[in-house]
Amino acid sequence: MLTLDKVYHASYVLRDVIRKTSLIAAPDINPQAKMVYLKPECLQVTGSFKVRGSGYMISQLSEEEKARGVIACSAGNHAQGVALAATKYGIKSLICLPDSAPISKVEATKRYGAQVEMVKGTYDDAYSRSLELRDRDGYTMVHPFDDENVIAGQGTIGLEILEELSDADAIVVPVGGGGLISGVAFAVKKLRPDIRVYGVQAAGAPSMYNSVHDGHIERLDSVSTIADGIAVKQPGENTFRFCSEYVDEIVTVTEDEICSAILALIEQQKMIAEGAGAVSVAAVMFHKIPVQDKKVVCIVSGGNIDVTILSRVIKRGLLKSGRNANLCVELVDKPGQLTLVSSIISACGGNVVSVHHERASETADINGCFLRLALETRNYQHVQEIVEALRAAGIKLV
Amino acid sequence: MLTLDKVYHASYVLRDVIRKTSLIAAPDINPQAKMVYLKPECLQVTGSFKVRGSGYMISQLSEEEKARGVIACSAGNHAQGVALAATKYGIKSLICLPDSAPISKVEATKRYGAQVEMVKGTYDDAYSRSLELRDRDGYTMVHPFDDENVIAGQGTIGLEILEELSDADAIVVPVGGGGLISGVAFAVKKLRPDIRVYGVQAAGAPSMYNSVHDGHIERLDSVSTIADGIAVKQPGENTFRFCSEYVDEIVTVTEDEICSAILALIEQQKMIAEGAGAVSVAAVMFHKIPVQDKKVVCIVSGGNIDVTILSRVIKRGLLKSGRNANLCVELVDKPGQLTLVSSIISACGGNVVSVHHERASETADINGCFLRLALETRNYQHVQEIVEALRAAGIKLV
Repeated sequence: MLTLDKVYHASYVLRDVIRKTSLIAAPDINPQAKMVYLKPECLQVTGSFKVRGSGYMISQLSEEEKARGVIACSAGNHAQGVALAATKYGIKSLICLPDSAPISKVEATKRYGAQVEMVKGTYDDAYSRSLELRDRDGYTMVHPFDDENVIAGQGTIGLEILEELSDADAIVVPVGGGGLISGVAFAVKKLRPDIRVYGVQAAGAPSMYNSVHDGHIERLDSVSTIADGIAVKQPGENTFRFCSEYVDEIVTVTEDEICSAILALIEQQKMIAEGAGAVSVAAVMFHKIPVQDKKVVCIVSGGNIDVTILSRVIKRGLLKSGRNANLCVELVDKPGQLTLVSSIISACGGNVVSVHHERASETADINGCFLRLALETRNYQHVQEIVEALRAAGIKLV
Repeated sequence: MLTLDKVYHASYVLRDVIRKTSLIAAPDINPQAKMVYLKPECLQVTGSFKVRGSGYMISQLSEEEKARGVIACSAGNHAQGVALAATKYGIKSLICLPDSAPISKVEATKRYGAQVEMVKGTYDDAYSRSLELRDRDGYTMVHPFDDENVIAGQGTIGLEILEELSDADAIVVPVGGGGLISGVAFAVKKLRPDIRVYGVQAAGAPSMYNSVHDGHIERLDSVSTIADGIAVKQPGENTFRFCSEYVDEIVTVTEDEICSAILALIEQQKMIAEGAGAVSVAAVMFHKIPVQDKKVVCIVSGGNIDVTILSRVIKRGLLKSGRNANLCVELVDKPGQLTLVSSIISACGGNVVSVHHERASETADINGCFLRLALETRNYQHVQEIVEALRAAGIKLV
């Protein structure tokens, strides 16, 4: 049985394992709110909140269990949390990873002190293997979310928020398997039932959203989102129960909204969030929950975003805000045409970053050719100015 | 005359204007050091330390000067610092900007409460215009670095570092015009002459480095670096004097080193630094100063990096670390060749993100064609595996 005492106890036990992350004011995220605050768990040790839950869970093992060590299956933040927590308590940890896991995550997990076993195949294969090893060698399995001690550990975030901002009106929490929001909602509602607790899922992985809505646990066939940290097919039994009882509402955000939130955190707060960590901010930016004149806390649950993904997120954000533009123009294939186009663009202050010249397309005039241009531009209006200047010179845009 | 009293006074006066930024441990920046700490002025209000200097300078104006307002010329952090500080003290500020300034910086300057005058031409044109307006309308000019009150304001960073980490061994400071390092070095050396103070410039803009080395102020004809915040052609007279007297050594870092430092801060610390802010970290990462077994503090002076630039920095970093790769292969122009190449790449676990197919190149065989491929890869070794698999299938790489 989860009790408030247990969450307070976790807070006490974890003081040597975690950092207390301080709230950061972020007024520009949504100016309609009285104030938006970020709880920056991306600045937590290991780059995510996960170490709280695994840390408390591991601390509560018996001496005999500790002597045998722990096992977990994860390619992400949970792996690093378990590895670091086990190392802090001086016990052995073994993490099973699918062999498709990104090298950077494997290396990070090893660096925190875990042994790593790469398993051929998918996450499910790695999970089966971890159960096999548990049964064979007597490890204790650390579940990523559906364990009451794990939930108690995550709940310490709720206590920290109330300690720093006792007059908060709402707390917005990313939801994957539901461990984080279960702990936070439980702790907050026991102490301050008037504070609203909202959950946020990616629209491409709405397992808890659907389940709570329909009143029973449902499993998604597939999930698709850049917020890989919350791409979970099925809620846990405990977390489903906590969410049904303590969470006021669960909402979803789109991929584009997640990307915009990541970019806003970079530009306004100089902070890196991963997709899962930014969904709470996306919900507040895009009016998915009422914030007018309220003090709203967004938990930014983690910052472990692959730079390849980050690069794609930024690219999409630049295109959407008109700071990059892709144009395709159709030209008569004769000398001087490229000069004409490029001189018009530079006269407008645009910066050409790449050019591809294509001849003999079926759809083009036999003497025609296509020019595909990638530009750096100032904003959406600037893109329009360039397009109009090209049109005014008789150049056909495709 | 700059005195330690003045720096303490600045610290007292600025308490209502600025945030005290707390040191952050960053052990992975250079594991040879006993510990590396970051002084994150990218998290300062306005996203840079500049508001300290302009804030103190403006606070010390006479009532008559305050009534007439202040003027400055800048397209960057100084503009935002002056704007915010003037607004805090309830006085008028006018900022002259060259009309080539990025829209985002213009908007930020307005948002902090300044009037903005866009001047046709370069920075020098905008500066001339600001002098003209000062003489005509009686504004007080806020110099970006060569003013003793500005320097006293920047020196408060030195006091904060000593307060938090009294046993620091070295402090590493970005250098452009020299205002920041003058204040920090003065304050630190007056209190703790045993702490080493290092300056860092971009190799593409080494004005203070050259001047101190040669013993007199020198002017560079041109500067070229992504660290635009420290791309200064000539040191100030005061700052040159302070650097010559109080700074232990000035070193330079390359553009690639700056990009690597920005990426390391993103990946390890989830923090966004601008180029100028990251040069201190670059110097410690790339062994430009002795750090073995020392406690080293890197001042990360600002985080206002344009996302277009950030996107380029990440791209370069991904290429350099083998997480992106560009390949060009020469094929016989017959059906099935693209399938062959793409199947080899996917079998190796590479992810094709773009393909360009070129025929009829002069250098190619008359029946040949080129395929330019952009890939997402795991690391440098993975790129080599793909290259070798292609070669083994008889495909020629160009």
